Amino acid sequence: MSQTTARPSPEPRDAYAHYVDIPTRWMDNDVYGHVNNVVYYSYFDTAVNRYLIDAGALDIHRGQVIGLVIETQCNYFSGLEFPQLVQAGLRVAHVGRSSVRYEVGLFSEGQELSAARGHFVHVYVDRETRRPVELPQVWLDALAALRVPSSV
Amino acid sequence: MSQTTARPSPEPRDAYAHYVDIPTRWMDNDVYGHVNNVVYYSYFDTAVNRYLIDAGALDIHRGQVIGLVIETQCNYFSGLEFPQLVQAGLRVAHVGRSSVRYEVGLFSEGQELSAARGHFVHVYVDRETRRPVELPQVWLDALAALRVPSSV
Amino acid sequence: MSQTTARPSPEPRDAYAHYVDIPTRWMDNDVYGHVNNVVYYSYFDTAVNRYLIDAGALDIHRGQVIGLVIETQCNYFSGLEFPQLVQAGLRVAHVGRSSVRYEVGLFSEGQELSAARGHFVHVYVDRETRRPVELPQVWLDALAALRVPSSV
Amino acid sequence: MSQTTARPSPEPRDAYAHYVDIPTRWMDNDVYGHVNNVVYYSYFDTAVNRYLIDAGALDIHRGQVIGLVIETQCNYFSGLEFPQLVQAGLRVAHVGRSSVRYEVGLFSEGQELSAARGHFVHVYVDRETRRPVELPQVWLDALAALRVPSSV
Repeated sequence: MSQTTARPSPEPRDAYAHYVDIPTRWMDNDVYGHVNNVVYYSYFDTAVNRYLIDAGALDIHRGQVIGLVIETQCNYFSGLEFPQLVQAGLRVAHVGRSSVRYEVGLFSEGQELSAARGHFVHVYVDRETRRPVELPQVWLDALAALRVPSSV
Repeated sequence: MSQTTARPSPEPRDAYAHYVDIPTRWMDNDVYGHVNNVVYYSYFDTAVNRYLIDAGALDIHRGQVIGLVIETQCNYFSGLEFPQLVQAGLRVAHVGRSSVRYEVGLFSEGQELSAARGHFVHVYVDRETRRPVELPQVWLDALAALRVPSSV
Repeated sequence: MSQTTARPSPEPRDAYAHYVDIPTRWMDNDVYGHVNNVVYYSYFDTAVNRYLIDAGALDIHRGQVIGLVIETQCNYFSGLEFPQLVQAGLRVAHVGRSSVRYEVGLFSEGQELSAARGHFVHVYVDRETRRPVELPQVWLDALAALRVPSSV
Repeated sequence: MSQTTARPSPEPRDAYAHYVDIPTRWMDNDVYGHVNNVVYYSYFDTAVNRYLIDAGALDIHRGQVIGLVIETQCNYFSGLEFPQLVQAGLRVAHVGRSSVRYEVGLFSEGQELSAARGHFVHVYVDRETRRPVELPQVWLDALAALRVPSSV
């Protein structure tokens, strides 16, 4: 397989449309003294769902539509560390009929380039049947605000 | 054993000397829809260590004195839930030669009474020998600011 | 308050009625190289609920009775560490009308004395109303098997 | 960019060279009743490091060579759930001078096809300088045993 895909690299702050502050926790650090690679995905998860709840799209307890995660990825460029404040930048890269690809960049406070970047693909399903559903309008509106003109 | 100890009950905000904001994360909620009981201790841990680092007492990487946890406890009064902001109140209840009993109350934003309260006992040891050490002055100063007159 | 309560100390294996194996995970270790104090409660939680599910008492998804945690405590005697296997010993110390006090001892594989011990108090409630319910017979049977004659 | 990459799909058990048992924990389940997407990476992390420690390659505390994670990815096919036993299959897909791409498949006990699959790229560095190092022989031997003839 000819692999022409460029290696992902850090991005500046304006590559993202919206930011969610995520203070690190003591337990986030692993034995090597930095935030463990697993925990980055907890930041992704929290940033995306927090945005959707605040935008009135996602209702964890009563909403008929819930998001199931089908793919996630992360590239790690430099360490994060408790007690730093992490700022998670969000943008939407692709909106399908019932799926959305979110892209997330993690920045430590005061740093211009992302310490990590990744994506998070949600398929939206009916809470009971778990079958894919068309994205409701409130969701489409919430997603529109996460578009970044320059994103590929 | 005659057990005359009163059942712990929620406390008001002024029962604590210092607050640390801890936003909840998606993963904090368990299958019953509230923050899992385990995660409360992660809030305790984060609040205490964050305070000690900010006060210049604890240096995770280079400090000669580190805190080992020998006892923790928590009483749960009402649920916490992502995406709430948790505010962790801190006070010092007892300072020994090389140990400290911290007491922590967890409040959800906007609520006057604690949703949970507990304690966290640190023994301070030398990083290499792991033998108890006398608390340094910078630590004593940091702890003095966590005293609450009315605390038992 | 006269505090005559003896300081908790490590116990031998026969102080517990049932064991659940819990392999440690990489992330359990914190920056000091041992299992973080918070994670011990995850072992408690897992051991108790795993026992109740295996005994046919707890059904996470369809059961009408669920357990809410109202108090937990842990005393830490010696470190645990990834990649050790942790063996969680369980016993029941008190069964009320709708509450149970479980006691848990954590042992690293091959060690005779517990590395930590604690308790975990569940109140059993109706899943919908969240009001306390009388313990069903299947639960009482499961708990009877966790009694240890010598336990206080 | 022409994207001809096929969508990843579940694989059978013989696609992996070595298995590590990972019992789920209560806290692994999230509010939707399945293991949270983040926790899958904790299984990856644990399986890879556990294998390397057991093979005598990685020594968390004293080894001069440590692995830093630079990329992870996961595709989720079907749910995992506490109290299931997860079996993590491992194989090595690429060994560079100082980096290794591990591929991991997660199976619930008794199931023939993977519930999730992903990869995990380690760069091996000197513990002090954090500069990449050539893989020691003990490591190369450990990795050789993770090769699967049919893997791409």
